Amino acid sequence: MTGPDHATRRAWAYLSRVAEPPHTELREFVEAEGPLEVARAVQSRRVPARYRAVLGATGARVDTDTSERDLETAARLGARLVTPDDDEWPGWQLWGLREGDTAARGGPPLALWVRGSRRLADEVRSAIAVVGARGATSYGEHVTGRLVGGIVDAGWTVVSGGAFGIDGTAHRAALGSGGSTVAVMACGIDLDYPASHAALFAAISREGLIVSEYAPGTTAARHRFLTRNRLVAALSSAVVVVEAGRRSGAANTAAWARKLDRPLGAVPGPVTSAMSVGCNRMIADELAVLVGDAQAVLSLAAPDGRGGPNHGAVRRTDALTGDRARVYEAIPARGTATIEELALGSAVDVDGVLSALAMLEVDGFVVHTGDGWALAGPND
Amino acid sequence: MTGPDHATRRAWAYLSRVAEPPHTELREFVEAEGPLEVARAVQSRRVPARYRAVLGATGARVDTDTSERDLETAARLGARLVTPDDDEWPGWQLWGLREGDTAARGGPPLALWVRGSRRLADEVRSAIAVVGARGATSYGEHVTGRLVGGIVDAGWTVVSGGAFGIDGTAHRAALGSGGSTVAVMACGIDLDYPASHAALFAAISREGLIVSEYAPGTTAARHRFLTRNRLVAALSSAVVVVEAGRRSGAANTAAWARKLDRPLGAVPGPVTSAMSVGCNRMIADELAVLVGDAQAVLSLAAPDGRGGPNHGAVRRTDALTGDRARVYEAIPARGTATIEELALGSAVDVDGVLSALAMLEVDGFVVHTGDGWALAGPND
Repeated sequence: MTGPDHATRRAWAYLSRVAEPPHTELREFVEAEGPLEVARAVQSRRVPARYRAVLGATGARVDTDTSERDLETAARLGARLVTPDDDEWPGWQLWGLREGDTAARGGPPLALWVRGSRRLADEVRSAIAVVGARGATSYGEHVTGRLVGGIVDAGWTVVSGGAFGIDGTAHRAALGSGGSTVAVMACGIDLDYPASHAALFAAISREGLIVSEYAPGTTAARHRFLTRNRLVAALSSAVVVVEAGRRSGAANTAAWARKLDRPLGAVPGPVTSAMSVGCNRMIADELAVLVGDAQAVLSLAAPDGRGGPNHGAVRRTDALTGDRARVYEAIPARGTATIEELALGSAVDVDGVLSALAMLEVDGFVVHTGDGWALAGPND
Repeated sequence: MTGPDHATRRAWAYLSRVAEPPHTELREFVEAEGPLEVARAVQSRRVPARYRAVLGATGARVDTDTSERDLETAARLGARLVTPDDDEWPGWQLWGLREGDTAARGGPPLALWVRGSRRLADEVRSAIAVVGARGATSYGEHVTGRLVGGIVDAGWTVVSGGAFGIDGTAHRAALGSGGSTVAVMACGIDLDYPASHAALFAAISREGLIVSEYAPGTTAARHRFLTRNRLVAALSSAVVVVEAGRRSGAANTAAWARKLDRPLGAVPGPVTSAMSVGCNRMIADELAVLVGDAQAVLSLAAPDGRGGPNHGAVRRTDALTGDRARVYEAIPARGTATIEELALGSAVDVDGVLSALAMLEVDGFVVHTGDGWALAGPND
C-alpha cells in the first residue's frame, strides 16, 4: 500500500477526530497545507485567519491525541485510515460533495476509516445504495431481497447504512447472493450499532467493507446519521429507497442523492401502508423514479447501458464540469501533457488550466509527473 | 323534455343500430343532413358519394327497423335515447372525441341510450372515472372505497364501466356514500352484463344513470368494451385506475384519457402484486400521476381548485381551441351578436366565423336565435 508515512498518517488520524466531521475549513486547511502542518498548527493554536473557524471546532479535543491508539484499534480489526493521499481514495465519487450547497454542509470527508480487506475505490466504483425504513414490513424486506439479488448478479456493490430493517436486509441479501456490500456507519468502525448486527458487521468486513468518517470509539448520534447519509449517496451511482415512512431517515438519504445528482429510485407500495408513505410521496412529487425490479434499478444507475461494472470509466468524466472537464478531456489517454499543451487542447487559459489541475489533482483525477500531467493510474 | 319529435327520434333510434357504432361517416352524414333525411337515404340506398362508407356499414341491418320497439323497450325501463338535439346532450364533454386520432377511431357517439331519471349533462358535468381490474384484490377494493368516498363527498359523480372488480366496487361505494354514479355499458341498457350485477344496475338506474351507445338488446363483445372505454374517459374530468394487471382493459381506458387530455391518475401497489403491475408501470412511464387518496384525485380533476362541482363553467372554454375558441369568446354573456359583430370581436374573418359557429352549434355551445347568435342555455 502506497500512501502517507506513519507520522503523516498519525496526523490524519488526529485530525479525523479533533473536530466533529465534516468540517469544511479544516479540510480546506489540510488540502492547502498538508496534514502534518495542520496538526501542528491546531495543537499550537496558530491558525491563519482564513481558517480561524478551525480553532473553535478543535478547542475541545485539541489536547487529546489518541491517534496512535486509534490506528492500533483499527489495525487490530483489520481496518485502516484511508486518506486522499491513498490509492484507494474514491476521489471522483466524493467530487460532487465539493459543489453547490453540499459543500456548505460539510463537503467531502477529511479521511475515511475502513474495515475490511478490499480496496475502497474498487468496491464503490460500481455501487448502488439500497436503503429504507428501520421498521420495514415483510413486503419491504421481500422486495429488498429481490432487488439486491439482481443488483449483485449484475456485478454491482450494494451500499447501505447498516441499520435495522431495509438496510440490514440489503446487506444480508448481498452477502447471501455472493456479492459485495459496503456499510457506511454513523459511529466508529470498531462499534457495532445496532449491537445485534455484530455478526452482520463481522460478515460485511470479511466480504465487503465497513466505512466511517468517525474515529474509532465515536458513538452513533442523530446528527451523525444525517451526515453519514450523504456518504451513502455519494459513494453510490444511484440510490433506491425501498420503504420509508412519513419521516424516515431514508428521505434524508434521498435528499442527498438529489443534491448530488445521483439518480433516485423508490419502490411503490400500498397506499394503505405507513411504511410506503414516503416512497409513494417521492414518486408522486417526481423526486424519485418508480422502480419495481432490479432491471429498473440498473437502468437508473447505468442509463443506456453506460457505466456500471463493465464500463467503470464513463461516469468519471460526467462528474466534471466547466474548465475542469475541458482540461481533463485534454489530457492524453497515454503519456503526459504540459500546461501549455493543455491550454491549447482545452482552450482554457494558462491560469485556468493551473487552477483546474490543482483541483483535479486533489481529487485524484490527474497526477503530476516529471514530464507533465497524466491521467491518474488504475484507480479510476 | 324538449328535443326531436317522435318520427325524428325513431330515425335516431334506427340509425343508432343500423351501423355498428361509432361510425364516423354516418355521424357526419347525420350532422350534415339530419336524422330523418339520413334514415331515408340509408333505407333507399341512395347516399352521396362522400358518405359512401355508410352503405357498406349499414348493409346487414338496413332492412331491420326495430326503432319503435327499441324506444318502447327503453321507455319500459325508464330509459330514453338522448341525441345531440336534446338539452341533456353532454356536448362539450364529447368535444375532444372530434379531434386528432380519436376522431379517426370513431369520434363522438351518434346518440346515447340512457337509463335513469337524471339528466345526463347534469350527471357528468363534474365527473371522475374510477376504473380497474376485474380481478381486483381486497387492497384494490379497499382503496376504491376510500377514494370514491372522498370523490362523492366533494360532490363529484363517479363514472365507471359496470364490470366486476374495481368498476363494481366504485359504483357500489358511490351509491353507499349517497353519491351519483354513471355506468357506461358495452351492451344495451336493457341487458345486465355481468348478470350478477343486475341488482347493482337497478340501483344505479335509480340513483344515477346507465349509458350506452348500443341499441337495446345489443350484447357485450370485446370490441365494444374497447369502444365503450372512450366514453368512460370522455364523460369524466379525470380518470383514476386503481388496479390493473399486465394486460388490463383499464390500460385501454387510460390510453383514451391521454388521447383526450383527461388527467390520468393511478394508484400504486405492491410491486409483488400482479394486479398492480399496470398501475405501477403507468406511473413509472410517467403516463399517469401517482394518486394515493381522494385529495390527490380531486387535485387532478380540478387543478388549483378550478372546475368541479362548484365551478362547472371553467372547462367549457378550455375545451375549445383556435377560431372556435375566439368566436366563442366573442359571444356576449347576455343577448346576441351578429356574424359581423363576431368577426369584429374575434378577429376571425366572416367565413371562419360561420364555420366556427356551425361546429359550436353542433356541439351545443351556441344557439342561433332570431336576433343572432347566443351562448347556449343553462345546459353549460
